[in-house]
Amino acid sequence: MQGQKPVVTVGLSNVPITGEAGLTCMPDTIIDEVNLEEIDSLLLPGCMDIIMNEDKLINFIKKVATNECIIASISSSPILLAKAGVLKGKKYTVGLTKECMIQSEVFEMANFSEELVVRDGNIITARGRGFIRFGKYLGEALNLTFDENWYKERT
Amino acid sequence: MQGQKPVVTVGLSNVPITGEAGLTCMPDTIIDEVNLEEIDSLLLPGCMDIIMNEDKLINFIKKVATNECIIASISSSPILLAKAGVLKGKKYTVGLTKECMIQSEVFEMANFSEELVVRDGNIITARGRGFIRFGKYLGEALNLTFDENWYKERT
Repeated sequence: MQGQKPVVTVGLSNVPITGEAGLTCMPDTIIDEVNLEEIDSLLLPGCMDIIMNEDKLINFIKKVATNECIIASISSSPILLAKAGVLKGKKYTVGLTKECMIQSEVFEMANFSEELVVRDGNIITARGRGFIRFGKYLGEALNLTFDENWYKERT
Repeated sequence: MQGQKPVVTVGLSNVPITGEAGLTCMPDTIIDEVNLEEIDSLLLPGCMDIIMNEDKLINFIKKVATNECIIASISSSPILLAKAGVLKGKKYTVGLTKECMIQSEVFEMANFSEELVVRDGNIITARGRGFIRFGKYLGEALNLTFDENWYKERT
C-alpha cells in the first residue's frame, strides 16, 4: 500500500467473512480486543446487507468517535455512524436511497449532501462510486504520503 | 458484484494469504482441485513479491490457456503468463520496468505496449494503474452486464 499505514482488520467475531464480490477474509482481530489507544482511525467498508442491530458495533463506533479518531465510512455504512450519533450536526453523504434513509429514522436529512464524498471535521463519508476520492480524502486526513495520480487513469 | 459472475478464489495451498494492503484472504479452493471444465476465465491479481519458480502455477496457467479461457492479468502478474508461454505473439502490457522485463528473459519485447490495458484475443493484460479499465475489459470479454459509469467518478 502506497501510504505505508499499518492496517488492522476487525471482525465482530473471528470467523471468515465473505464480501459481496466473493472474497473471503479473515479479520486480524475482534472488536472486543481492539486497543483504542493504538488506533488513530476507523474505516467502515460498504455492505449490501446492512447490519441492523449490532449494539456491539455501534458502541465501538461511539467509543472510537470520542477519541478524536478519523472515521471514514462508505456506501451504506454511514447508517452505522448515524445510529451511533456520530453524524449529529455534520454534513455527510451515504449510498442509500432517500426512502431508505427516511425509513431508518436515524439520519438528519437537512445535513445530507449530494456530493460523492464529504469531509466534515474528523468524519469522511462517501457513496460507493466515490471510492477513489474516498481513499484520497482518508489518506490526506491521515497525512499519508501517496501519489494520487496513480489512481487516475489516463484515457 | 454488479456482473453477478460466480467467483472462485484459488490458492497454491489452503493457508490464508495476506495481500500488500494487509487484508488476509482465504482461498475457496486450491490449484490442484480446480476443475478446468467449470471455469471460463482466470484472473491473476498483482503481486509485489513476484512468485519466481512456482511450476505448479505456471503449469496451471498453461492448462487454462489451452481451454479457450479468458485470461486477465494485472500489475506484475503478466510475467507468469510470459513464463507459461501464453503471451507468445500477443500484444501485452505489464507493470514492471523495462529493466526487470529484460532481466527476466521471458518477455517478447517487440510485442510490449505502452497502453495501460491491452486485450489481444483471449488475453487481457494491464498495469496496476489501469485497474478500472482492466475490470471493464474483463467484464466485456465475459459478456457480463454492468454499468461502467458506476466506476467513473464525476469531478
